[in-house]
Amino acid sequence: MNYSLVENILGRLMISFSGFMVIPFLVALIWQEGSVLAFVLSIIITLVMGLILLAYGKKDGRMGVREGFVIVAGAWLLTSLTGALPYALSGAVPTYLDGLFESVSGLTTTGASVIDNVEILPKSILLWRSLTHWLGGMGIIVLFIVFLPNMTGAVHLFNAEVTGPTSERVLPRIRDNALKLWQIYFGLTVAQIFLLIIVGMNWFDAINHSFATMATGGFSTKNTSIAYYDNLWIELIIIVFMIIAGVNFSLYYQAWRSGLNKIFKDIEFQFYLLIIIVSTLLIALSLWWTMGIDGGNSLRQALFQVASIITTTGFATANFDQWPSATKIILLCLMFIGGSAGSTAGGMKVSRIVLLFKLGWVELRRAIHPKAVINVRFAKKTVDPVIFNTVAVFFFLFLSIFAVATLLLAAIGLEPLDAMSAVVATLGNVGPGFGVIGPTTTFSSINAFGESVLILCMLLGRLELFTLLVLVQPEFWRSRKGW
Amino acid sequence: MNYSLVENILGRLMISFSGFMVIPFLVALIWQEGSVLAFVLSIIITLVMGLILLAYGKKDGRMGVREGFVIVAGAWLLTSLTGALPYALSGAVPTYLDGLFESVSGLTTTGASVIDNVEILPKSILLWRSLTHWLGGMGIIVLFIVFLPNMTGAVHLFNAEVTGPTSERVLPRIRDNALKLWQIYFGLTVAQIFLLIIVGMNWFDAINHSFATMATGGFSTKNTSIAYYDNLWIELIIIVFMIIAGVNFSLYYQAWRSGLNKIFKDIEFQFYLLIIIVSTLLIALSLWWTMGIDGGNSLRQALFQVASIITTTGFATANFDQWPSATKIILLCLMFIGGSAGSTAGGMKVSRIVLLFKLGWVELRRAIHPKAVINVRFAKKTVDPVIFNTVAVFFFLFLSIFAVATLLLAAIGLEPLDAMSAVVATLGNVGPGFGVIGPTTTFSSINAFGESVLILCMLLGRLELFTLLVLVQPEFWRSRKGW
Ligand SMILES: [K+]
Ligand SMILES: [K+]
Repeated sequence: MNYSLVENILGRLMISFSGFMVIPFLVALIWQEGSVLAFVLSIIITLVMGLILLAYGKKDGRMGVREGFVIVAGAWLLTSLTGALPYALSGAVPTYLDGLFESVSGLTTTGASVIDNVEILPKSILLWRSLTHWLGGMGIIVLFIVFLPNMTGAVHLFNAEVTGPTSERVLPRIRDNALKLWQIYFGLTVAQIFLLIIVGMNWFDAINHSFATMATGGFSTKNTSIAYYDNLWIELIIIVFMIIAGVNFSLYYQAWRSGLNKIFKDIEFQFYLLIIIVSTLLIALSLWWTMGIDGGNSLRQALFQVASIITTTGFATANFDQWPSATKIILLCLMFIGGSAGSTAGGMKVSRIVLLFKLGWVELRRAIHPKAVINVRFAKKTVDPVIFNTVAVFFFLFLSIFAVATLLLAAIGLEPLDAMSAVVATLGNVGPGFGVIGPTTTFSSINAFGESVLILCMLLGRLELFTLLVLVQPEFWRSRKGW
Repeated sequence: MNYSLVENILGRLMISFSGFMVIPFLVALIWQEGSVLAFVLSIIITLVMGLILLAYGKKDGRMGVREGFVIVAGAWLLTSLTGALPYALSGAVPTYLDGLFESVSGLTTTGASVIDNVEILPKSILLWRSLTHWLGGMGIIVLFIVFLPNMTGAVHLFNAEVTGPTSERVLPRIRDNALKLWQIYFGLTVAQIFLLIIVGMNWFDAINHSFATMATGGFSTKNTSIAYYDNLWIELIIIVFMIIAGVNFSLYYQAWRSGLNKIFKDIEFQFYLLIIIVSTLLIALSLWWTMGIDGGNSLRQALFQVASIITTTGFATANFDQWPSATKIILLCLMFIGGSAGSTAGGMKVSRIVLLFKLGWVELRRAIHPKAVINVRFAKKTVDPVIFNTVAVFFFLFLSIFAVATLLLAAIGLEPLDAMSAVVATLGNVGPGFGVIGPTTTFSSINAFGESVLILCMLLGRLELFTLLVLVQPEFWRSRKGW
């Protein structure tokens, strides 16, 4: 392991991260908020940590696949730890652990909160919450790659942070690619801010909600989330941008160069839209039939909630914890499925589910043609069997971690469904679940042990398990030649 | 498709099945029960169906893999349909659908009942319930193979009915193997009957409960199941035989020839025992700590329930629906896991879960050695990658069917956890779940649509999905040369 290089890169990353803290610091300064000192201290601590790492590190040597995993895992750990400082030091939360929960929830774009009343928070703290969403959404490491001078091995960093199962991840010019992703992400965020201001949202809320939408984060500046505005136009804009944020961003780049049909011909996009349409219709039907809500309002509430949950954003316009049982099951399934690979959304990703269904179909055919060699095609290419293994294992590990974490939460007294929904809401980076952590409540009722479990779930979910799980192998840390 | 052969075999099977109905008919005759006429009619209808099939069929031609699937699926369908007749015709249940539910629940060894008060049922009906368990447990088709004169292709029948993922299924002398399995099964059942009589159970209850134990079925002759007896010895005997029934029966054959260490060296058996021990200790701890039950009783209740649920038997000595949340999550996980491959137990099977964990470990190693070829060893042999695919697909399809069926039950008004537990209790052939279908209640509150969904779940679970799912491929039914 090339520790010098790891320290060097992490050092530079921490210095950059302290730079991002200057933005809410300026906001605190302008509005003369009590949180000024908290941000000053947070910036100093983060900066000093960065400088110490930089002093120990050296900017040379080989970056291999192991260094990639350690840097990405380390970057998420360090930004989580220092990102918690503004919350804890400003007194926005009672304990550092609560601050860490809020910080991890922000960076992983989960949007689960332990703060019951966000409307009394300083503007600077609200902006810091949204900003961590925005940085974590497209990825701090991916952003960092943009500013790295041609570094060999950046592909390992990229792969360890970007979501999704396909081999598309391995791209020749990784820095160009990172730059384009961030350009598109930035452009879409700016577009949403303007649209929200046009339909009447104030600019501060517009910035915060746009950060939270494009990152599929879900932190709001209002206790009642988007329901606060009760405005059809605001809801429509947010629905459209949530759905946009749940699409593979490299499709936008391809569409930019070769036309919109690049998007519509993508198999994952087709299934993504199909799931949204079918789920919306089923839920609207259920709301209309069971709860007697009129057709238009049923569709409006159903579409908003489906878009919010499948993209794992977690904004709410209705208390879906009170909805009929069947709609809850649909929403629970959507939490597991999540958005597209290469999007800012969480969950297991649509492409993984589609691949598993294809593999299922192949196995059914193999049962009657035991000796046939059957290839699976996805997006017009034959799928490498290794990808199937990886996807199948991901599915299994995701559910195993889900089961273990649910058991741990049940052990501290959560009812089964509450425990399950708390875990999938964090492991899938969704945010709200059902029951004690429903859309109108927060995670403040969970004790310290439960918070710690859920913090781990959020990180495992955002880094898609492997980036953290590989580190638990003793073999990973053993020195060997040739690595 | 060789339809003549299919008809011939199914015809002979129906005639044999009508022969088994003679046993409860004799019981009804001896005790002069009102159900005599119901059994006479059932026997005639089943016999006539068998004779008609036999008249249309011909006993020659090739038996291929497709014929194997059709015969096994057809056999389960026909025995389910005719097995329902005694219930419906005797008035034990109000509708034929209820009878079908009870029949499928019996044959698939699920043990879920729609009859609230079984203690008022005629002895003949009670025995028919237990007998269907016993026939379905080791497998009607497997039993039938014993009596088939050297038929080529019997291996396809065997494979389509016996549970588990391994390639051990393909055995050279399939008839010998089927005979040995049934001999062991029969011997163990007789042993349990005698032991139960010795500790004071009456012989009728002893026969019924032994059938239900060795088949991991769970139908009892008492409304309160094993709790009725409140007898430590009865509980211990049933615990031991439930655990025995959840082990791969071919291990007993190997142990018979080569000594007991054949069993203890088996990797699936080791994990099976480990899961039982760990789960029992965790649940006992939870009962002692949360509910204040003393140590001995905590262990007694925990061990009985763990053995009953992991082997998917479903007997109850306590109302575990009232237990702490964490114990429910453990029991729910055990329902998914189930017993060993090649046992009479349901669920996904321990060996599949162990294989998936091994595959997970391999993928974690592959993440840091992308180019290495890593073989997975299981039971001292390198696992064929094709088996991995099949196991991974099974896991995914099991959970997909679980999700869809849960949604359908939620749509008729079951609360999420009730719907989930009803589906896993039937898909895993367990029997009782939580809430409205808890250990002290029955499935009588579920409406006809819900019953139909659960009937399908029980059959899918018993035949481990593939045997039924292959039939939905249009290609399966197309004629082709060389098949
Ligand atoms: K979220
Ligand atoms: K059972």
